[in-house]
Amino acid sequence: MNDQIFETVVTTVAADGTPHIAPFGVRYRDGHVVLMPFKPSATLDNLRTTRHAVLNLTTDTRVFAGAVCARWLGARSWPLLPVQSFAGQRLANALAHSELALLHDNDHAERPTLTLRRVLDLTHAPFPGFNRAQAAVIEGAVLVSRLQMLAPGKIDTEMDYLQIAIDKTAGPEEHEAWGWLREAVARQRVQAGVGA
Amino acid sequence: MNDQIFETVVTTVAADGTPHIAPFGVRYRDGHVVLMPFKPSATLDNLRTTRHAVLNLTTDTRVFAGAVCARWLGARSWPLLPVQSFAGQRLANALAHSELALLHDNDHAERPTLTLRRVLDLTHAPFPGFNRAQAAVIEGAVLVSRLQMLAPGKIDTEMDYLQIAIDKTAGPEEHEAWGWLREAVARQRVQAGVGA
Repeated sequence: MNDQIFETVVTTVAADGTPHIAPFGVRYRDGHVVLMPFKPSATLDNLRTTRHAVLNLTTDTRVFAGAVCARWLGARSWPLLPVQSFAGQRLANALAHSELALLHDNDHAERPTLTLRRVLDLTHAPFPGFNRAQAAVIEGAVLVSRLQMLAPGKIDTEMDYLQIAIDKTAGPEEHEAWGWLREAVARQRVQAGVGA
Repeated sequence: MNDQIFETVVTTVAADGTPHIAPFGVRYRDGHVVLMPFKPSATLDNLRTTRHAVLNLTTDTRVFAGAVCARWLGARSWPLLPVQSFAGQRLANALAHSELALLHDNDHAERPTLTLRRVLDLTHAPFPGFNRAQAAVIEGAVLVSRLQMLAPGKIDTEMDYLQIAIDKTAGPEEHEAWGWLREAVARQRVQAGVGA
């Protein structure tokens, strides 16, 4: 049985203060937050430089879809606010965020394990309930992150299945995020010379 | 474009104080909570009697899976706590809850529309991030709620697809909820005389 994994957004800053926003599947262990970034990783570099990161808990799926579509649609930025405990930034629309300090750094050739201690946890808005369209965007983002590895037919079948929850339960944010995922699939096919 | 729908748990009490716990897909409109129960509905009856309900925002998918499996596996109960504004009960493990009062009751032969005003909103724990296994349990619960209407092959294909997220990202609660859904599918087939 694997650990439970939560899809979150981790924000870090570089030595010069430039913020970096990255979706991350994280684990919670003994009250700590565990990240396993794949090298190369700007989050890893920033964490090793500043020793701090911010865990953002958000249901705005555009941040997740925007990140995996950046390669085809260009990078997007999201409103940030300064955090309290160190010179870090958090997503302005996070439902909650945790300000984290690096506790253990277990290096590995491909995928180090970083354990982060919670310095401060703050809640900004209540969880509004499960939205099936948000879950569909997260699944669609996983597919788009693997576009080059998956057969076009499999992508189409799974996107069509996920489309049902989009049609039934999405709001404007999820429709926007889903549109980016569909557009990224189309652009990748043009580039790869696959008939759409 | 439809409204955004959130999967929540609504708790009400009957005239004699007996609590009723029901998963509900709700809409948020102008700050109010909108329920559209299908008749017959204990939630509807209780709301019309007491004029109050509690909206529970929880990521414990066992409540959702337990409800749709009750027909095959028996009803389950969940720990409740009294609310502050009226003689109501909330889920003890809700991340947040809203204490609601009936504002409009637009009756309909099959599906009335009830608009509820927020009397008090309380947050108990932060949203921990999206968990793909929780989303898979919610989708599995939708399938099990339609077991008699769907072909066994379709159920199996969709459950096998959802199993991937369970295997990769579930914790003990999601494994338990998923096990109930699998068991309900098996029992329904025995009853219906369908080869498993």
